Amino acid sequence: MDKKKNISMAVIKRLPKYHRYLSELLKNDVDRISSKELSEKIGFTASQIRQDLNCFGDFGQQGYGYNVKELYSQISNILGLSKEYNTVIIGAGNIGQAIANYTRFEKIGFKLLGIFDTNPKLTGIKIRDIEIQDIDNLEMFLKENNVDIGIICVPKINAQKVCNLLVNNGVKGIWNFAPVDLAVPGDVIIENVHLSESLLTLAYLLNEKEDQKE
Amino acid sequence: MDKKKNISMAVIKRLPKYHRYLSELLKNDVDRISSKELSEKIGFTASQIRQDLNCFGDFGQQGYGYNVKELYSQISNILGLSKEYNTVIIGAGNIGQAIANYTRFEKIGFKLLGIFDTNPKLTGIKIRDIEIQDIDNLEMFLKENNVDIGIICVPKINAQKVCNLLVNNGVKGIWNFAPVDLAVPGDVIIENVHLSESLLTLAYLLNEKEDQKE
Repeated sequence: MDKKKNISMAVIKRLPKYHRYLSELLKNDVDRISSKELSEKIGFTASQIRQDLNCFGDFGQQGYGYNVKELYSQISNILGLSKEYNTVIIGAGNIGQAIANYTRFEKIGFKLLGIFDTNPKLTGIKIRDIEIQDIDNLEMFLKENNVDIGIICVPKINAQKVCNLLVNNGVKGIWNFAPVDLAVPGDVIIENVHLSESLLTLAYLLNEKEDQKE
Repeated sequence: MDKKKNISMAVIKRLPKYHRYLSELLKNDVDRISSKELSEKIGFTASQIRQDLNCFGDFGQQGYGYNVKELYSQISNILGLSKEYNTVIIGAGNIGQAIANYTRFEKIGFKLLGIFDTNPKLTGIKIRDIEIQDIDNLEMFLKENNVDIGIICVPKINAQKVCNLLVNNGVKGIWNFAPVDLAVPGDVIIENVHLSESLLTLAYLLNEKEDQKE
């Protein structure tokens, strides 16, 4: 299937949600679903759903709805989940360990190859059969393994250094949990999870609602 | 200062980033900054910055730039950080513990009052002087304390139940880490951190870039 180019970021950001809902429908043995039913579940309007899915090709069938299995597999394809991604986690604190423990990521194609930390109390501990290694081993590890995604869970003061090491050794995807904006070359993709920004957004909306009541 | 109503979600989502950068400038004793300099640091265009900050009032001064301290304090106000928010964490797994350990949240006004879990192996353990309690205590705790924000870090299968308990006991803000969309009444604000959606976005962008190279 040909992907159309220039899909907007807004559509891309909605695709993982379609993927999640469709995977649940599949689990519940639902064969097909109309854009209206999908809309009730997912909270986007039916016309939004039809428009989004049309960006990627002709999925629906008038009066029949979407074939759940086919749509799921197409969206998996579009998301690049027909491939496997090798990942490493740098920083084995709480966030790093939480991510290492998410078995769902492995199921959808993200294979965790290694976990690295500077803390000697952590090295040697195993998470899901993967031993936490000293961060001094990281460079060699990157040279010997084909790592697609580096997951940065170190304190912000070390994040750029770790990022540079990953990028200089060919890692093209960075999933960054450090509360800092990292500088990377143009051919590297960064996706940030900035928790405090999310919390501040919540506070703003709470506060705004109270102002409206007054 | 009067807040103008109907600020777009896009602007709101950028405010925490301004807040973070300004707090760093303050720490480095920077007194004032032009929109151009701020633009170089933060990565938004100078005109975007001027436009964003104009939504909230007249901060800048022609030829002088922004007073960092004043702008920081105004943005803190706008974000509702002049108030304190009482929070509880439900689910003391890795994510819950990670959040409990972020001292930065406390510094900007989010006070952690309690942590709850179903696992008897966790109850009694202290995180930053707060003892993890059995989740059976949660309802009474909510009745006795004025909790603003409930942070949901339980597995998705329990998330709606926990959310209902919070909402039925007056909690108006939900910070949800469970990979599920929770149903809440219209007067409750939900902010989701859906990690797998973030990872899937990264995979999509990585994959798209490779397709373009081919």
